[in-house]
Amino acid sequence: MHEPAPLFSSEEYRGRVSRLQDGLKTAQMDGLLLTTPADIFYVTGFLTRFWESPARPWFVLIPATGDPVAIIPAIGAALMGQGWVKDIRTWDAPDPVDDGVSLLADAIFEAIPTNGALGVPMGLETHLRMPMADYRRIVDRIKPRRIMDATAIVQRVREIKSDAEIAKIKTTCAIADRVFARVPEFASCGRPLDQVFRDFQIALLQEGADWVSYVAGGAGQDGYGDVISPATARPLAKGDILMLDTGAVRDGYFCDFDRNYSIGAPSSTVQRVQDALYSATDLALETLRPGMTAADLYNTLTNALRSAGLTPGGGRFGHGLGITLTEWPSLTAKDTTPLREGMVLTLEPGAEVSAGKFLVHEENIVLRANGPELLSKRAPKDLPRIA
Amino acid sequence: MHEPAPLFSSEEYRGRVSRLQDGLKTAQMDGLLLTTPADIFYVTGFLTRFWESPARPWFVLIPATGDPVAIIPAIGAALMGQGWVKDIRTWDAPDPVDDGVSLLADAIFEAIPTNGALGVPMGLETHLRMPMADYRRIVDRIKPRRIMDATAIVQRVREIKSDAEIAKIKTTCAIADRVFARVPEFASCGRPLDQVFRDFQIALLQEGADWVSYVAGGAGQDGYGDVISPATARPLAKGDILMLDTGAVRDGYFCDFDRNYSIGAPSSTVQRVQDALYSATDLALETLRPGMTAADLYNTLTNALRSAGLTPGGGRFGHGLGITLTEWPSLTAKDTTPLREGMVLTLEPGAEVSAGKFLVHEENIVLRANGPELLSKRAPKDLPRIA
Repeated sequence: MHEPAPLFSSEEYRGRVSRLQDGLKTAQMDGLLLTTPADIFYVTGFLTRFWESPARPWFVLIPATGDPVAIIPAIGAALMGQGWVKDIRTWDAPDPVDDGVSLLADAIFEAIPTNGALGVPMGLETHLRMPMADYRRIVDRIKPRRIMDATAIVQRVREIKSDAEIAKIKTTCAIADRVFARVPEFASCGRPLDQVFRDFQIALLQEGADWVSYVAGGAGQDGYGDVISPATARPLAKGDILMLDTGAVRDGYFCDFDRNYSIGAPSSTVQRVQDALYSATDLALETLRPGMTAADLYNTLTNALRSAGLTPGGGRFGHGLGITLTEWPSLTAKDTTPLREGMVLTLEPGAEVSAGKFLVHEENIVLRANGPELLSKRAPKDLPRIA
Repeated sequence: MHEPAPLFSSEEYRGRVSRLQDGLKTAQMDGLLLTTPADIFYVTGFLTRFWESPARPWFVLIPATGDPVAIIPAIGAALMGQGWVKDIRTWDAPDPVDDGVSLLADAIFEAIPTNGALGVPMGLETHLRMPMADYRRIVDRIKPRRIMDATAIVQRVREIKSDAEIAKIKTTCAIADRVFARVPEFASCGRPLDQVFRDFQIALLQEGADWVSYVAGGAGQDGYGDVISPATARPLAKGDILMLDTGAVRDGYFCDFDRNYSIGAPSSTVQRVQDALYSATDLALETLRPGMTAADLYNTLTNALRSAGLTPGGGRFGHGLGITLTEWPSLTAKDTTPLREGMVLTLEPGAEVSAGKFLVHEENIVLRANGPELLSKRAPKDLPRIA
């Protein structure tokens, strides 16, 4: 009774691992080493905020055939044991003498033939969450086994979301939808922005977020200067545009979208940018189809803004979304990743209102065979006004 | 007006960098490469939740002499520009062709002579937050310059907190103190644990946390099974011991301590473990002095519990604390790091109540010349009871 319900069936996880193994075989790799919270959660269901502590490395090794092996600090054994992975090997971490290196090397010896290759994600948008000195020890220890870049294998699998995953993201988006509707309750004229940020997080928890991994935004006359700074104590003032953006989390799945509010009536300049961003997003929602690339979608958004006489700005124009706040691909001119059915993406066009002042819109979608399906509730066409 | 107030004076940051540079010179290194949120925040004051996106690498290069260079994604330029670091070089990230590699290599060429060495933290409790493939490109590109392990340099500087840092941690601890006093408001018998976790986070925000990076805990009859699992919907029941633990954040500085509550009267077994843990912490508070090692402190706590007839358990018995939830050293038998004046530490003894059931206490302290000073308000000697 009240045992933790697994987030997904064992079949879901087995399907994920099997697709990764197909990728390994095609690329002639004999195993895959995963070290990050998202990659390990993806294949095992191991979900914990304990990753916030940088003290300990965690490893999952997926052989080209057979079940994953979790090589983890002993403190995680009980939680990992609740999931479908049965081969769990532990050590008392952190260990200044041997922090899991021998255990990991032994698992690699078992899984990978002497002339074989171990895949490690090492490309764009990845990092290895373990000490570099220990990684070099592993590389030396397992020779003549080779290391190969497994970034594409992991990304091509993780980027296509199952129906069960899409349902999770939709649930998190609905939490944020409800909170964005409540923003006028706590974001009144005169209220300091840092208090608005706190109230925004409180509302997200009240509406069902397990935790709030990301909140950003800005407020300023006729637009905001940047979208990653912490809030200051400056009170909201008439003529401000307030933007709030969140990556809330429920069951390990993120939403990531923003909403804009006008404190009092927006200026005609802001109104013009608002309309153009809204129309650009509409155009993307109408025309996006599987087979287009990330750059194609970026160009759709950029060209729409340029046609409206605006200067696009504010960062990339969207990205993947799922078990981290942002996933590949990036909606930029240089990213030629094909957009495929089942991808969950953000559409995030931004434009300059004046020098150094921006407006940024954002929606979350899943790409279906016949086009995008919104996961967030479409933002209102007119900027909501706050008294 | 309402420009963001810097968290610390430029002198504070210059002092930090200067101490790191002393370390570099002693170790005969010509520069230091930093890539993680905490290390970069430490030397630049760059504080943002945007790190939650794994998409982009960020670099700070500290030459052995002179000012740091920030080599960062353009989206961070405005925020970094508010701080004391003036040499800021940006690129449009993520860039699948060259994601800051050339910019970083150029900065290394400028700072480090051909026969010189670049320090990189690569030891216990570190990782390199950039793609491994790009790191290997950098290593190749900058040859014959060598790479050396700079872990000890960074750790010996960061582990000694300035008075300004200690004041920040104390402020965050006080937020958690106020919330722990309010727990009986929302943790009543019959309330599901996952709702208690949400209410706990809400209360932390209400009391002044900027955000809540970590919440953990557990609840079970006569103790809890592990301390890193997410909360389930199981309602609190009479006879449960509830533990809540948080790493809340204010101005980038963490607290990390827990409190225990008894739903109804605790059993005599629980009472016995409670008393022993309390006395063990008291003993540590009385006897800890600079010059002892992390292992010495671990032994103090462990021996006190063993003398009381208990089985120590529940993980390491404490750790450093500051700009991440946990910092080195680790209070384990193997960690011989000297404990020095100015270190902020957690004291976190745990013991078995019965097979697989634990009780864990935790306090936050700063080590002064004459012994520990509590940063958290000492936990009540008797387990607080919740009706």
